[in-house]
Amino acid sequence: MTSSTPLSIPQLIQKKRDNTPLAPNEIERIIRGAVSKEIPDYQLSAFLMATYFTGMTFDETANLTRSMVDSGETVDLAKIKGAKVDKHSTGGIGDKVSIILAPLAAACGLKVPMMAGRGLGHTGGTIDKLEAIPGYRTVLSRDEFSKILSEVGCAIISQSEKIAPADRIFYALRDVTATIECIPLITSSILSKKIAEGANGLVMDIKVGNGAFMKKKTEAMTLARTLRAVAKRSKVELRATLTNMDQPLGYAAGNALEIYECIEVMKNEDLNPYQLRSSDLRELTLHLCAHMLEIGKVVKSHAEGRKLASKKLEDGSAWKKFKEMVTAQGGDASTLEEPWRYMKSDKVVDIRCGKKGYVTEMQSEEIGRLLIQLGAGRNRVGEPIDHSVGLFFHKKLGAMVKPQDTLVTVFGNKNSDFDLIASQIHSMIKISAAKKTAPKLILEANVK
Amino acid sequence: MTSSTPLSIPQLIQKKRDNTPLAPNEIERIIRGAVSKEIPDYQLSAFLMATYFTGMTFDETANLTRSMVDSGETVDLAKIKGAKVDKHSTGGIGDKVSIILAPLAAACGLKVPMMAGRGLGHTGGTIDKLEAIPGYRTVLSRDEFSKILSEVGCAIISQSEKIAPADRIFYALRDVTATIECIPLITSSILSKKIAEGANGLVMDIKVGNGAFMKKKTEAMTLARTLRAVAKRSKVELRATLTNMDQPLGYAAGNALEIYECIEVMKNEDLNPYQLRSSDLRELTLHLCAHMLEIGKVVKSHAEGRKLASKKLEDGSAWKKFKEMVTAQGGDASTLEEPWRYMKSDKVVDIRCGKKGYVTEMQSEEIGRLLIQLGAGRNRVGEPIDHSVGLFFHKKLGAMVKPQDTLVTVFGNKNSDFDLIASQIHSMIKISAAKKTAPKLILEANVK
Repeated sequence: MTSSTPLSIPQLIQKKRDNTPLAPNEIERIIRGAVSKEIPDYQLSAFLMATYFTGMTFDETANLTRSMVDSGETVDLAKIKGAKVDKHSTGGIGDKVSIILAPLAAACGLKVPMMAGRGLGHTGGTIDKLEAIPGYRTVLSRDEFSKILSEVGCAIISQSEKIAPADRIFYALRDVTATIECIPLITSSILSKKIAEGANGLVMDIKVGNGAFMKKKTEAMTLARTLRAVAKRSKVELRATLTNMDQPLGYAAGNALEIYECIEVMKNEDLNPYQLRSSDLRELTLHLCAHMLEIGKVVKSHAEGRKLASKKLEDGSAWKKFKEMVTAQGGDASTLEEPWRYMKSDKVVDIRCGKKGYVTEMQSEEIGRLLIQLGAGRNRVGEPIDHSVGLFFHKKLGAMVKPQDTLVTVFGNKNSDFDLIASQIHSMIKISAAKKTAPKLILEANVK
Repeated sequence: MTSSTPLSIPQLIQKKRDNTPLAPNEIERIIRGAVSKEIPDYQLSAFLMATYFTGMTFDETANLTRSMVDSGETVDLAKIKGAKVDKHSTGGIGDKVSIILAPLAAACGLKVPMMAGRGLGHTGGTIDKLEAIPGYRTVLSRDEFSKILSEVGCAIISQSEKIAPADRIFYALRDVTATIECIPLITSSILSKKIAEGANGLVMDIKVGNGAFMKKKTEAMTLARTLRAVAKRSKVELRATLTNMDQPLGYAAGNALEIYECIEVMKNEDLNPYQLRSSDLRELTLHLCAHMLEIGKVVKSHAEGRKLASKKLEDGSAWKKFKEMVTAQGGDASTLEEPWRYMKSDKVVDIRCGKKGYVTEMQSEEIGRLLIQLGAGRNRVGEPIDHSVGLFFHKKLGAMVKPQDTLVTVFGNKNSDFDLIASQIHSMIKISAAKKTAPKLILEANVK
């Protein structure tokens, strides 16, 4: 074998296994072979497991990302004026930020071409939530998407099958071969889709905690830094924020309930009838919006972006923009004015705290699984979900409670076993005599 | 999920990935799933790559071996009197020991139920060599095998497809997913086949050097110790010897040529017309035979075994036994008396040393690949081979040479390009002015 003979696929796997960085054309051969099916799945999965153990350099990860982008269609947004900035979250419980953030950033002058996902594992998905709005279409043609983006300033649609097909192949294999938790693979999966959809800026919300995929801050920092380094090599401006996911974000979890909470935030109103304000949700949305505005060069500093975002939220511009977007995507905006009207589930039951003390722990991943059990999420791809069901958390970490206080309101349906749910909730949310400080929401404002 | 729910296959892969030993029933599920095809290849290859990185405990490896044995048929030799002891080599160039050793050990009173392989990678295989003998049948029914073993004392046949099918599935995947070089997988592959064939003792010849799969002694020591530990758990008596493979063993490489060399050793004769004696081949055969006799309890010590083996070689008993075995397996024993008669290749060319000095290096893996190029071995499973071709090495490591001395005799066929072969041989065998001590043949006589 001469030195110019390209390596065979087993030799490429061995090279990765032996921790030697692969050349750009070697990575491209793997991706092309995956999409054309010339490389069988058993070699791809061995490659993925070798990558799990030896990792990839930033350059390799950038090359992998580029090859994944090139494996499918790309959206060309060059004709649309203005900076195109998107946001992506690694997923959590009650994370409904995108639904407020897209119209808010658009109201501030950005273009937000958002392609979002459905629920994954124990976490919810933006697309499932938006489908709680009657008529809202999450699948648009490229022309429709561009038109709405140009005229309204934002659109939230589900990822096209034609975007980064190599990522779908890799993801399906990773899901069944214990190779999900691998930073270069996570990085290329996120960035390839965002680059293919035409964004030139991206704000990452990396969740850390018992309801996140990353339980430890150190891992999340590594992911953030890898995303930054690879985005830089891919000519994408990226900001990463680390936020706490040791409890649901906001008060509501469940598809229609979360739309309702978003609406109340956009309307600057209390969550009626509970007289609660979703201050964490509002705070995080403003923080991420300020990042988006800064990297989109609408403002010169994060502080200035924060100020502009607050103004556009408070003066009703975000709310107006949201209704425009929903209408443009086929949704019935009139229903948004009175969300309670159509968000009623079959049966609503309040669960009491039962004792005096402080909320000291919320097992968020378990809460996510309870939501799936209720019908708000899926155990298998393609299962139908019940948009009406969900949980409303009256008492969050650090709250002082009395026995008769409502801990959680359960929005169930005719299949729900409320006694079982009550016992599950009491095992997932701990009330202790001694107060414990609630975790900070924003763990790292801007990872360098 | 309750604690009694068995783990899913992705969870089992993850457990191995995270370096937690698998329980016996978990390993059994993987092996059963592999054979029944319920576990897809892409999960098996991810499991194999995870095992490559995290390894296995001796207990896990013993359980894996047991499950592989149970995946197919086993040969019950309980009815045959005497200790059943086999020998296995990890493979090299010119390693023809088994062909002398089986009849020699049988002549000393052991039963040798030998199931051997074909050439693998750059190395030769005992079965290919024996097929150079006209009429020799390497596939026998179980009854024939038992009968010959009982009556003659030894039989050398090729491994049945029905023995340890899980090993065949794993081996085929490992071959194309860069997971060959993994000690627990190598160990279970070797031992499962030997246990299934009914041997209760096994002598391992582990080759180390530039013509072996293991280039370093440390790796070979780890393999030897793993084999010992796992064999003990599997109730098999095992001895391991480490031997040098920085040069071909003996003088001949190539199928018919190696049979010829074995015959001359068994006849206690020189390699005519070259007036050479295969002392390394003879020495290693006696050493391994003494181990076999000791673990088979024919003798009380290695020294005593060595003495008995020498006697049975020198008095012609091994040679007689070999002819009995060949005859019993359908071979024409009359051809063995005059091997030169039928071992003639199309064209024989001597390559001269060309300069004065000492032989200081033989690139044995490259020599193995040259043998394949000549037609003595295969590039793909199932390819036909030319039993007549091969190389005869007149000058081995440490030999003093003059320019006109013959370095190598090439036994080629009509397709052979002798000029090319001469230049290849000169690049593979180095002659230097300064003498270098030849490596010791036996690196570790008995690994503890």
